Amino acid sequence: MGTTQLETVPEPKYWHLKTVLGEALDSDFSVGEILPNERELAARFGVARATLRQALEQLELEGRLQRRRGVGTTVAPPRMGVDVSTTQHQWPGAGEDAWQPVDCAPVVPPAAVARLLDQDTGAGETVHGVRRLRMTHSQAVAAEMLYIPSGSVPELTAIDAPSGPARARSVLRELQRLSLEGQDRAVELGSARADDAKELDRLPGAPVLVVTTRYISGGRTVAVSVATYRADTCRLTFGDAGDLQIAS
Amino acid sequence: MGTTQLETVPEPKYWHLKTVLGEALDSDFSVGEILPNERELAARFGVARATLRQALEQLELEGRLQRRRGVGTTVAPPRMGVDVSTTQHQWPGAGEDAWQPVDCAPVVPPAAVARLLDQDTGAGETVHGVRRLRMTHSQAVAAEMLYIPSGSVPELTAIDAPSGPARARSVLRELQRLSLEGQDRAVELGSARADDAKELDRLPGAPVLVVTTRYISGGRTVAVSVATYRADTCRLTFGDAGDLQIAS
Repeated sequence: MGTTQLETVPEPKYWHLKTVLGEALDSDFSVGEILPNERELAARFGVARATLRQALEQLELEGRLQRRRGVGTTVAPPRMGVDVSTTQHQWPGAGEDAWQPVDCAPVVPPAAVARLLDQDTGAGETVHGVRRLRMTHSQAVAAEMLYIPSGSVPELTAIDAPSGPARARSVLRELQRLSLEGQDRAVELGSARADDAKELDRLPGAPVLVVTTRYISGGRTVAVSVATYRADTCRLTFGDAGDLQIAS
Repeated sequence: MGTTQLETVPEPKYWHLKTVLGEALDSDFSVGEILPNERELAARFGVARATLRQALEQLELEGRLQRRRGVGTTVAPPRMGVDVSTTQHQWPGAGEDAWQPVDCAPVVPPAAVARLLDQDTGAGETVHGVRRLRMTHSQAVAAEMLYIPSGSVPELTAIDAPSGPARARSVLRELQRLSLEGQDRAVELGSARADDAKELDRLPGAPVLVVTTRYISGGRTVAVSVATYRADTCRLTFGDAGDLQIAS
């Protein structure tokens, strides 16, 4: 984040190069422009290829550069602010929602999710797995798996919508019968699973921001959502500035 | 996050290994235990060293493993939940606070911060830079730079505390005279600056979670905080479950 007078710590070479390169991106390049190849860049800045590569990796982590196969390294547009605030007390799928239901199938929740769900059922038991995508400008910015135990939707029947997006909507509609008492979220660093990576147009293992949400009703966790956001293009926003309408 | 029946996408070799290794960590190793060296592990799982290394990197990204110089690769403890919710309307340094003021000096805010601050002053002008650390069990989990324009603390004098933590406290005390109308936060992926990395006991460039907060008073952004959290050990929590007292 720029140079400050408090920075008295000696910086490694690639870090210094990263700063210099970052300034060059601001002044000499425009968004979407393709960078010269590594050999040229290394020569221009008088550094070894390995040093250059480290600096490029840093700039990619910070969302300044995008590397795409067959295209090369391009200057990334500013990250998109994606609202993940919990100020609206709302069930998934209720009201206006950027999420698009894709599928629903029985899934065995991973151990970490099973621990969050107040399940009376034993380990290894299946729950409803609602798969959704968060779309922005017809691009998926996040992929979600919503884990909903049968006990949370007791009146669900298999008759009218046995599978697919229609089934997902039925499960969410049943969930919305419960009264939502609270929800909480956690954000952490993760790596994209193969199925998420495919939806998000990333390689498996790419760094992602994982947002875990617990939905609480009757003092219990009745649903858990694990949503995977692209870390390269997204900035997760949350807060209570609400009506103040501050430009972002 | 485990195996589900929706996973029909073919997975690359290192990804499959990662899953197998993750399960082995659960069943055969305990927190803090040192893993066998790469050669041994590669032989045990019948994979190439390069494949093994990719899988280890994934597990490190997910916070399952820690690599420490001179120690080797150890099984990481579960990530620590660190509250970053904005439900408490409070100025930095007001009331109980996990943050410890370390220093205060004039700094030139980076371009991204200058854009957030509603500054009448020109570009390149200095603001008060309050440096704080967020301590948990006497370890720094986050390092912060708080940017406060002179206009936000007009009655501050240089007399009683010209520098250091005392100066930082004076600036925060003056800031608290304003009425806090709102705040908002954004979380994004970043890489640790050299000075932050040193405080957080990480290498420069390590992945970090960057939390940017705008403090609003009189309809203007009067202070901006850029806090860098360790991504390996921290899970950022926010939400309104509040009094529900759910085990995390």
